[in-house]
Amino acid sequence: MKSLIKRSFSDFFFEYETPRQVLVKDRRIAVVCRIIQLGVLSYIIGWVFVYEKGYQTVDTAISSVFTKMKGVSFTNISGKERIWDVADYVFPEQGDSSFVVMTNYISTEGQKQGKCPELPDAKNKCTSDADCDEGKYKRTGNGQMTGKCDTNTSTCEIYSWCPVEDDSKVPNPPILWTAENYTLFIKNSITFREFNVVRSNLVESVNQSYINTCLYHSQTDPLCPIFRLGDIVERSGFNFSEIACKGGAIGVLIDWDCNLDLNIRHCKPKYEFYGLYGTGKNDKEEKPSLGYNFRYAKYYVEDKVEKRTLMKVYGVRIDIIVHGRAGKFDIIPTLTAIGSGVGIFGVATVVCDLLLLYLLPKKDFYKSMKFKHTEVQEENPTLPPSEKEREIQKE
Amino acid sequence: MKSLIKRSFSDFFFEYETPRQVLVKDRRIAVVCRIIQLGVLSYIIGWVFVYEKGYQTVDTAISSVFTKMKGVSFTNISGKERIWDVADYVFPEQGDSSFVVMTNYISTEGQKQGKCPELPDAKNKCTSDADCDEGKYKRTGNGQMTGKCDTNTSTCEIYSWCPVEDDSKVPNPPILWTAENYTLFIKNSITFREFNVVRSNLVESVNQSYINTCLYHSQTDPLCPIFRLGDIVERSGFNFSEIACKGGAIGVLIDWDCNLDLNIRHCKPKYEFYGLYGTGKNDKEEKPSLGYNFRYAKYYVEDKVEKRTLMKVYGVRIDIIVHGRAGKFDIIPTLTAIGSGVGIFGVATVVCDLLLLYLLPKKDFYKSMKFKHTEVQEENPTLPPSEKEREIQKE
Amino acid sequence: MKSLIKRSFSDFFFEYETPRQVLVKDRRIAVVCRIIQLGVLSYIIGWVFVYEKGYQTVDTAISSVFTKMKGVSFTNISGKERIWDVADYVFPEQGDSSFVVMTNYISTEGQKQGKCPELPDAKNKCTSDADCDEGKYKRTGNGQMTGKCDTNTSTCEIYSWCPVEDDSKVPNPPILWTAENYTLFIKNSITFREFNVVRSNLVESVNQSYINTCLYHSQTDPLCPIFRLGDIVERSGFNFSEIACKGGAIGVLIDWDCNLDLNIRHCKPKYEFYGLYGTGKNDKEEKPSLGYNFRYAKYYVEDKVEKRTLMKVYGVRIDIIVHGRAGKFDIIPTLTAIGSGVGIFGVATVVCDLLLLYLLPKKDFYKSMKFKHTEVQEENPTLPPSEKEREIQKE
Repeated sequence: MKSLIKRSFSDFFFEYETPRQVLVKDRRIAVVCRIIQLGVLSYIIGWVFVYEKGYQTVDTAISSVFTKMKGVSFTNISGKERIWDVADYVFPEQGDSSFVVMTNYISTEGQKQGKCPELPDAKNKCTSDADCDEGKYKRTGNGQMTGKCDTNTSTCEIYSWCPVEDDSKVPNPPILWTAENYTLFIKNSITFREFNVVRSNLVESVNQSYINTCLYHSQTDPLCPIFRLGDIVERSGFNFSEIACKGGAIGVLIDWDCNLDLNIRHCKPKYEFYGLYGTGKNDKEEKPSLGYNFRYAKYYVEDKVEKRTLMKVYGVRIDIIVHGRAGKFDIIPTLTAIGSGVGIFGVATVVCDLLLLYLLPKKDFYKSMKFKHTEVQEENPTLPPSEKEREIQKE
Repeated sequence: MKSLIKRSFSDFFFEYETPRQVLVKDRRIAVVCRIIQLGVLSYIIGWVFVYEKGYQTVDTAISSVFTKMKGVSFTNISGKERIWDVADYVFPEQGDSSFVVMTNYISTEGQKQGKCPELPDAKNKCTSDADCDEGKYKRTGNGQMTGKCDTNTSTCEIYSWCPVEDDSKVPNPPILWTAENYTLFIKNSITFREFNVVRSNLVESVNQSYINTCLYHSQTDPLCPIFRLGDIVERSGFNFSEIACKGGAIGVLIDWDCNLDLNIRHCKPKYEFYGLYGTGKNDKEEKPSLGYNFRYAKYYVEDKVEKRTLMKVYGVRIDIIVHGRAGKFDIIPTLTAIGSGVGIFGVATVVCDLLLLYLLPKKDFYKSMKFKHTEVQEENPTLPPSEKEREIQKE
Repeated sequence: MKSLIKRSFSDFFFEYETPRQVLVKDRRIAVVCRIIQLGVLSYIIGWVFVYEKGYQTVDTAISSVFTKMKGVSFTNISGKERIWDVADYVFPEQGDSSFVVMTNYISTEGQKQGKCPELPDAKNKCTSDADCDEGKYKRTGNGQMTGKCDTNTSTCEIYSWCPVEDDSKVPNPPILWTAENYTLFIKNSITFREFNVVRSNLVESVNQSYINTCLYHSQTDPLCPIFRLGDIVERSGFNFSEIACKGGAIGVLIDWDCNLDLNIRHCKPKYEFYGLYGTGKNDKEEKPSLGYNFRYAKYYVEDKVEKRTLMKVYGVRIDIIVHGRAGKFDIIPTLTAIGSGVGIFGVATVVCDLLLLYLLPKKDFYKSMKFKHTEVQEENPTLPPSEKEREIQKE
């Protein structure tokens, strides 16, 4: 037993197996096959390694965004002059990655709880009390029906904040059309945890004096983190005057694609702008539910009665999305790519063998060269072993 | 030197190596091995290529979500009738992907800065002034202790917005229990940048007239973007009356799994609903910190004194999460899958060789067929080369 | 035709090909090659399988976060005593994953629409009316210029909410410096959809009584979901008194790295804290745009005039980011890793062959053993086939 183990061990460690190869000296097939093999090799080196960077391991970013709007608008509505600043037109105020800049609105002041007739539009008409179900509310309604039909307006009477908001006529041109000149400042911090790299979009070339004066331009100032709202809208494909009237949504993509095998200074963001829910550029078809709006109320107490001013806000909704990807050389993806490459080399060999054994004129000769046949061993003790072998090789 | 280079070059290009194979004509092992090889091949083609789509490159989505609630509630509290509409019960108002629909609340009106006793519950009891540390505040307290112990309530006196909010009795049934009938409209835009594809959940079959009347149903209307709040809650596994009382959180997952080798019309979203922090369906154990609530205040000035109305809001918190994945045919993952497949084929060959060389009765014969032995070359110049070889082959 | 198909079928299924190997009995090269092969094998098993868990398929998490702040601050400003609680200092109130805790502020009360001079600082100086462009506004301005130059302050007169906010002197020490003692409660729910696993950071060991008393500590209480604000700031590398004055941003990372082949109880979160936009720890250089602030307004009506109190809020902005990754054994990545491993084994064989054929003293002998040469078949019908072969083997 011990000697058997010892013998297997010595066989394993002291013998080396290498595949026996047949060397075919046929020029045509050799050239064709070398070309196939060189092609596979250049694909592996060229595409997988150099272009797609298959030798790198990839990490996605964890990021945080902080924004700040700046700018004022001056309006003169029915002789009433008014200035609008950041605290008036940005929702919410904290500077999140997703916010709305108000460009238009419908204001219904001094609403208080009570009963009043619905709006006189097609959806809520009635001719008698029977058309108005007490206690129910219509899907497009503003309140709960009392059961009475108001004869003046021919609409159902409802419990609601009265008077009911009339949003049939949207102001055109938009009230805050000068919002085009507002500026947006974006601060973005990204972390690639696997590589312990922290970056901010305020890269080396962006210092305080540059920030104070610059304005983003895709060619001349691609790293300036200050953006003019009108520029953002134009670059997304929307037309500012259209989007300012009924609102719209724009995505600002901060794209990081960093090769960490190079100096960290080459890890810089790229800004892209997308119109969401129906881009102005490409779409000709009528899209449902265009525009962007929401309602909010400012509550107050007047003469001991709770009142509110309801605002239907139309605006530019900005969603800042960060897409971060970094690659760095790592031994495992490199060896995996090499391993797969060797596998594909094997496919090249199979293809060449097929040519050799099935297409060439001398294929039978090559078959005999390539394959060593075995048969059931003949029971003929008289022939010496070498003779036996020679017989076998005749097949 | 030149001729050496020339010779190596001609050797390389004009000679083709192919492995020499031994052809074993043993039916049993041949059938077994062919079955193993066909098994590996069908695994590679069937599972890796067809089922897992290993020939595709995958991209994840960048997305943006916009929501809008609709619906009203009518309440009659102590004779006071009141209507609640969207501006009253949604926080925040802008229509983000994460928002709260108020279903219940505790309102403490007319709070103003001052000193008053803590709530008479077990956490803040005192018997004398010594129990109340001036200037400190308890972790569960509502204000900073003044150092006095209020004898009426046996609790410490605190600086606070007075009177202190009493949240020991949560209204049951919930005040806004009719929130079940509210509807939620979700607009979701996703972009697969690598394939330059932009989609919205308002797919081809969803037009304005459909949106005006439809309601989401997982079988009959799976693409309708309007959801009834009660349905969302039920599908998540929660019971609406439970969740409306103390609040709860629900995740709405919009799942995109697109095969971009097909027509774009097949790229459609699927909606799923999850109860978060303790699903009603599966969990039997008592979970800590159930429910969802937050506090917010409405500030006003009355008689030149700053006052506020504190609201402890219980509600359904909805988090809309988008999960997007698209695949499209690409040459690199295809070749990588083929390369790995060829590698696995090699494993099949190793397994068959083991059977051939160690398990079959004629294993020694096959060993002699498979292996060509080499020894240290004998120093016997008298034998012709062919004789030497024949001697070697005897081993 | 039929017999040809039948013959190919029988050839395919009843013959088994195995590569013919040359067995080299040279100790040195055998040991070297076995070492190389064992090295490759241990790399594949050790690194790819055990360390990197290459046999697992990986899924990323879908998550939802809910937060709650607790704590009060007491201030005494110009004799006016005041308590600040959660409804006063957290923005926004709903408990999102991203929120601000106010630590300092500049309050401008009783602003109303009108004309007033700009702040007397360097940016808006003027000497005569000509310096002030009517209808324009400066980038750093607070309103729209009327065209007049105010002689008292030597700054342009503007339409604005008057009086204009003076933010030149930021209160130091910060007004709400006791914010250090506030506590933050984080609830995080994650789902790994591919494995149908739902987890919450309130793991098995975290029950209601533990939550009521614990405080997070990285060694003694790493799973407690209650964090002291001052601790969060210190661990992120910032100094609380610096960050409280002008504000700052902190990222709280909840990291899940779960091996689902083990019991689910081992799937626990790890909390990490990062200072964003300039960490106090490492950075010596002066970074632009430090600090964090935003403006918001409380509107009210006094004597029938709309007024507002403008607050410039400085605070600690907290961004909670969830990073979830789970792995579980799956047959496909396992076979892919094996396939690539077999490919790399092939590389080991190539390396050994190169040693064998080009470096050893007996390389020519081994070359003759390894390669079987073929030539164009000689037209010599007189020699029997075996003789022909022997002739060929002489080359």
